[in-house]
Amino acid sequence: MKNILNTINSPQDLKGLSILELEQLAQELRHFIINIVSTKEGHLGASLGVVELTIALHYVFNAPKDKLIWDVGHQAYGHKILTGRRENFETNRRLNGISGFPNIFESEFDAFGTGHSSTSISAALGMAMAAQILGNKTQQHIAVIGDASIASGMAFEALNHAGVTNANLLVVLNDNAIGIDPSIGALKDYLTQTKNGKELNRDNIFEALNFDYSGPVNGHDLSKLISELNRLKNVEGPKFLHIVTTKGKGLKKAEEDQITYHAPGKFDAQTGDRITIKTENSPLKYQDVFGHTMIELAEQNDKIVGITPAMPTGSSLKYMIAKMPNRAFDVGIAEQHAVTLAAGMAKEGLIPFCNIYSTFLQRAYDQVIHDVAIQKLPVIFCLDRAGLVGNDGATHHGVFDIAFLRCIPNLLIYAPMNELDLRNIMYTAQLGLNLPIAIRYPRGIGEIIDWKQPFEKIKMGKAKTLKKGTVTAVLSIGTLGNIVNFAVDKLPVYKKEQVGHYNMQFIKPLDIKLLHDICRTYDTLLTYEDGVINGGFGSAIGEFVLKNNYTTKVKMCGIGDSFIEHGKTQELKTLAKIDEASILNTILSTL
Amino acid sequence: MKNILNTINSPQDLKGLSILELEQLAQELRHFIINIVSTKEGHLGASLGVVELTIALHYVFNAPKDKLIWDVGHQAYGHKILTGRRENFETNRRLNGISGFPNIFESEFDAFGTGHSSTSISAALGMAMAAQILGNKTQQHIAVIGDASIASGMAFEALNHAGVTNANLLVVLNDNAIGIDPSIGALKDYLTQTKNGKELNRDNIFEALNFDYSGPVNGHDLSKLISELNRLKNVEGPKFLHIVTTKGKGLKKAEEDQITYHAPGKFDAQTGDRITIKTENSPLKYQDVFGHTMIELAEQNDKIVGITPAMPTGSSLKYMIAKMPNRAFDVGIAEQHAVTLAAGMAKEGLIPFCNIYSTFLQRAYDQVIHDVAIQKLPVIFCLDRAGLVGNDGATHHGVFDIAFLRCIPNLLIYAPMNELDLRNIMYTAQLGLNLPIAIRYPRGIGEIIDWKQPFEKIKMGKAKTLKKGTVTAVLSIGTLGNIVNFAVDKLPVYKKEQVGHYNMQFIKPLDIKLLHDICRTYDTLLTYEDGVINGGFGSAIGEFVLKNNYTTKVKMCGIGDSFIEHGKTQELKTLAKIDEASILNTILSTL
Repeated sequence: MKNILNTINSPQDLKGLSILELEQLAQELRHFIINIVSTKEGHLGASLGVVELTIALHYVFNAPKDKLIWDVGHQAYGHKILTGRRENFETNRRLNGISGFPNIFESEFDAFGTGHSSTSISAALGMAMAAQILGNKTQQHIAVIGDASIASGMAFEALNHAGVTNANLLVVLNDNAIGIDPSIGALKDYLTQTKNGKELNRDNIFEALNFDYSGPVNGHDLSKLISELNRLKNVEGPKFLHIVTTKGKGLKKAEEDQITYHAPGKFDAQTGDRITIKTENSPLKYQDVFGHTMIELAEQNDKIVGITPAMPTGSSLKYMIAKMPNRAFDVGIAEQHAVTLAAGMAKEGLIPFCNIYSTFLQRAYDQVIHDVAIQKLPVIFCLDRAGLVGNDGATHHGVFDIAFLRCIPNLLIYAPMNELDLRNIMYTAQLGLNLPIAIRYPRGIGEIIDWKQPFEKIKMGKAKTLKKGTVTAVLSIGTLGNIVNFAVDKLPVYKKEQVGHYNMQFIKPLDIKLLHDICRTYDTLLTYEDGVINGGFGSAIGEFVLKNNYTTKVKMCGIGDSFIEHGKTQELKTLAKIDEASILNTILSTL
Repeated sequence: MKNILNTINSPQDLKGLSILELEQLAQELRHFIINIVSTKEGHLGASLGVVELTIALHYVFNAPKDKLIWDVGHQAYGHKILTGRRENFETNRRLNGISGFPNIFESEFDAFGTGHSSTSISAALGMAMAAQILGNKTQQHIAVIGDASIASGMAFEALNHAGVTNANLLVVLNDNAIGIDPSIGALKDYLTQTKNGKELNRDNIFEALNFDYSGPVNGHDLSKLISELNRLKNVEGPKFLHIVTTKGKGLKKAEEDQITYHAPGKFDAQTGDRITIKTENSPLKYQDVFGHTMIELAEQNDKIVGITPAMPTGSSLKYMIAKMPNRAFDVGIAEQHAVTLAAGMAKEGLIPFCNIYSTFLQRAYDQVIHDVAIQKLPVIFCLDRAGLVGNDGATHHGVFDIAFLRCIPNLLIYAPMNELDLRNIMYTAQLGLNLPIAIRYPRGIGEIIDWKQPFEKIKMGKAKTLKKGTVTAVLSIGTLGNIVNFAVDKLPVYKKEQVGHYNMQFIKPLDIKLLHDICRTYDTLLTYEDGVINGGFGSAIGEFVLKNNYTTKVKMCGIGDSFIEHGKTQELKTLAKIDEASILNTILSTL
């Protein structure tokens, strides 16, 4: 049988195919995705689930003229492969390769960049309203959104607005009952009832919001999808197609263990078995240190609760959710709600650990200010995946948090240098600080094997003096301190003694006493952070130096004023000059 | 007839009253609110609408043991008066007086501070879940939320989560079809159908989300409210009471013109007639300059569109909405959606002016980064009410925007010094910058009578040299530059020549060339901004000075590291030492 996929270089090439050929193409596309992702890694399950939908959409609609927006974007691999990126697809998520998410700079077929969830309906509605204003009457606008993402507040705002427009908007709900972890919430239960045979009554939620609803349709049935999409193409105003799919469809293991196979790492393309490299005596991930420490602390202190907005697996709060389901909660993709829920709990005397990825806390910025900090409620924010996150790229790096948090009064900010610091600050915070605190730590493997040491109380606003010197003081924050240590160790002996190194631990409050000493002792301060320089940690040090009229030179190192793309974390650190070699060179340049 | 209100010093005092007495109390409370607000100013309509509900809630429930959360808080005046603040009520919104919003530091009856909308359900759910964990079985948790606020995404997130808990939560929907401006969206239409007699079918939206729904109930019928609240008190799990009220109830003018009487200023307590002081030849508000300029530009450029999330009147976008309804949109309380909608429009070639209050942009922070800045989409953000806003207080000051925006790559930031600057930057931005821009300007009256001058193009990143000097350079941003001008004018002549003044206009990009000149010329830089110092404009200047190894002293002036309470803007500026006298003293101290 002739391979069809290899002949598809643009969606135009689909148009002449028969349903049978399209079905063959679906199988080929699925195998293509499995084969590449099995060796190159990436997001698997979501894209496998929408193979038929992807083909149907590109068969029925005419991208790039018609606008197709993939919410979150995990599921856009098939779309990328069918729109001219088949041959580049093996560079997916790699430095200088294609992005793991839709990206407007990469292809005109990517109508709108995605990465964070629940933006697609707003963006598609904006395009549909633009088309009306610009008189593009035939242009179509399609947002494909999952059931986990549609439950997030922003998607509701967009539906609520769309329902009072006559915009030519099609929302396709890809209902597979799972985001990265299983979907959460009343809406999910409502949708589940539907799929289990209870007919949505005539005025279902989406009809109540003025959408022309159709479904549920089997999302793996190509001909049904095509005929329904063809019908909807000619329906005016906002319309809603509810399709039911299976995440991981076509790879048995991925269907059976949907959480793991969301992004399984390397695996055997035939059997689906994951290829895990045994790493005995390797440190745990910071995430697991957080997750296990939560249980340890919660067993000692019955006021402690845990909250995650839809990242129980990613954050490792899953351990506590499994062990203490009444005290640890996944609230769905709802960062805003998560923060204010935590504030309400803190007001009543609980001690909430609210674990949110740094990049997703951007979604709850107002709530941190308005509901937590103004009221001095002692919520403990654990900001996972702070700093550069690697292959997820620009949408996911946690590099803005220091800058956007440090301007908020009443909020403490801490960055552990290793697992012991992380554990000890969690321990210290739950003893009671009377103020909220943000604890930022990176994605991935830690520094120490023997991390489970007895807890020690951390003194507020106290930095670590790692090494004293005479000429240049390096002020580091967080785990970057370990890289600075390695760099300092590589200095020639006679220069090494000129260099001091201080891991500041607290970005707020700063260790003022130590900073005065440092400014009086050294000629130059070098600040190192895995966040943006503008307004960041180094900027805070600069403010201190200027406020106190010191003439000490300050050189701020960190992420410059541009978005960082995807690549291995180590590669990105090198680009940002916060890798060991760059740090060594920078230190030498000051001596 | 004996006055009952004067005997109510806590909700406990309500408990023995008969329905007839409660009804009398309602009238007294209404008149009390009208009398005070008519002379002292404040939010009127919302509180008048919930007089009966307020009494019923405090009659049925036992605050402060039971937790009562007023969403947004505009409507909490009756609550404040009945909970021990009757005699202080005339200090409402004044410096050192009581807050115009619920405030946990002011009274134990204010279970949770509000100000921004749609937080109440999350907070109440947090408290209800806390009560379960802490074993407080009888404690009740009530969120009172309006129909405009419940349509905001965060409220949906909370409903969606609450529906899968068995938390003891009562959501009271105060449905009056208006926020500050009329409510917007499909949900509003849905609720309106209900009130017009169409019975909500058995599986209405709230029931679909697993709430025990009851209503609609006439929210001005005290006995019905009391009996329904008494019934719901004993219903387990999340429940929903839909009441219908009239905003401004009891004052004819306020019922007839609900938008104006949201916060009408001074008025005649008997007739309701507003007492407006004729201010001939006084400058317009910045808001109106924005509003009229929008029309002027949109008439010349058919790509221009306007967007406001629920602030058409406050922002003055209402003029364009009235004149060009197909090109100017109120999207409801939906800042997140507003920003991404604008991004979608910009992607398709429109030129969206997205007008959002500075404090409310905190709600859409992620969307500014993720949907606009990463994609370099040329959305024009008009940040209204930047800086200190006065009587609304801590929840509403627009003092964080410079700090939280300046760390975002690709985003230009501009602050006009007067109306001409505002108009000219709007004109310049719509000519095409290929990048997004945030234009921040204050609430209230401008500087110039004759503001309608021909448009002039503004040069990117160019500061204004207002006065040259020799010793101290004042670098100001925005309208604070006018106050600095007044202060400089008051300097003794021989000192005046030592002082330079530069209005920087652009916070990003900075006028680098000029800054080099300044650093080479002056001993001291004084930076002035109406925003937080931490990470703000002065901090950016500090970064520049340090990066370039200048030894120029830098003193940063602006809002310190604490939340600013309510009071007249002028009073707050004095407290923050950014008033004329303080600026004069500070300049003198550097000479």
